[in-house]
Amino acid sequence: MEDLQKRIGYTFKNTDLLTEALTHSSYANEHKAKHIKYNERLEFLGDAVLSIVVSDYIFKHCPELPEGELTKLRASLVCEKTLFEFAKQIELGKYLVLSKGERNNGGAERPSILSDAFEALIAAIYIDGGIDPASKHILNFVIPAIKNSKKKKLNDYKTALQEIIQKNPGEQLEYVLVGESGPDHNKHFVVEVHLNSNVIGKGGGRSKKEAEQQAAREALELMGY
Amino acid sequence: MEDLQKRIGYTFKNTDLLTEALTHSSYANEHKAKHIKYNERLEFLGDAVLSIVVSDYIFKHCPELPEGELTKLRASLVCEKTLFEFAKQIELGKYLVLSKGERNNGGAERPSILSDAFEALIAAIYIDGGIDPASKHILNFVIPAIKNSKKKKLNDYKTALQEIIQKNPGEQLEYVLVGESGPDHNKHFVVEVHLNSNVIGKGGGRSKKEAEQQAAREALELMGY
Repeated sequence: MEDLQKRIGYTFKNTDLLTEALTHSSYANEHKAKHIKYNERLEFLGDAVLSIVVSDYIFKHCPELPEGELTKLRASLVCEKTLFEFAKQIELGKYLVLSKGERNNGGAERPSILSDAFEALIAAIYIDGGIDPASKHILNFVIPAIKNSKKKKLNDYKTALQEIIQKNPGEQLEYVLVGESGPDHNKHFVVEVHLNSNVIGKGGGRSKKEAEQQAAREALELMGY
Repeated sequence: MEDLQKRIGYTFKNTDLLTEALTHSSYANEHKAKHIKYNERLEFLGDAVLSIVVSDYIFKHCPELPEGELTKLRASLVCEKTLFEFAKQIELGKYLVLSKGERNNGGAERPSILSDAFEALIAAIYIDGGIDPASKHILNFVIPAIKNSKKKKLNDYKTALQEIIQKNPGEQLEYVLVGESGPDHNKHFVVEVHLNSNVIGKGGGRSKKEAEQQAAREALELMGY
């Protein structure tokens, strides 16, 4: 457990809370007479702590996003799939307290069990230290995830354009670098996207890749997408 | 707006936030050129603030409730129906900024518009003053609502018993006061519930009503419910 506290960069005053967060109901059921606390109530609370921290962050850091986009972004960050990824980053499965049966059935790798324990861990930090350390802990995972999802979105323009074009056999897309300026640490690239030698979009950026993406985006807009 | 601030017991440093919370999208659409801010983004944030405050409160004040019951209780407190009731308590509809069309269509009384504005108001307080005044504001509504829902649950034993008994025509329920003790400020009542003159339950409480409820509860238990 010390190991896990190092990994998450938080030291518990009351380690019983950490134990509770890591204990799955199957273990408590296996040792019913001992009335062991398990992590379901903490998971309930952790879900809400996660939601306010994520909501507060994206509300303040994405002032350009309307409510619908904020809701989508939040949903993508607090869903089981994402929390499962976060849990794997700290190898949470290694620390879980499961029944023998559940462990043998691969419970320590199951997305639902890991994402629930991740939420319970959030609540344990929140009860132990308040909203500030809980928020810090959550943002350690959420900020990189937001950056990643932005990168993925950026990649999507080229992919989206490619997918539309290849529906018509014989059509050919080509990205052509037409400008490059600025010193090494502050380059600016300009790229055109050609469809069968006709320019259908042009874009700039700090890298060729970014300029290509912007060119593809312009082409998509031009085509009414 | 001063009137509303008195009603909710919170004075805004930045009243623009209050205005934004009260402004419906229909009004912003009606005056598009002015780029008026409306309350949808605040509603997104207020939803999460409401959730953490309610979750924190019931987690700490209902230690006997398992996760499933906590989830049900939270859902009942943050649903549109409940928020609509809260909004009516402060006559929020009077202060809403709606388009002419929306106001003429009864928008100021519509549950969805009022519950959304109630959430937006929560977020406005949260941004203006932090989690503490937001929490105080929310609990002003939520604590009485929890007490009410407990009362309603208490009322349910007698109703439940009545509904079971009246399925058999001719059966008659009667509540009989059989004991009354203690000084005026600390009375204890004992009530029996009779079915066709047979005692089927007995219960005590600080009021006749409570004692009847407990008697009905015992009868339900005896009957296997």
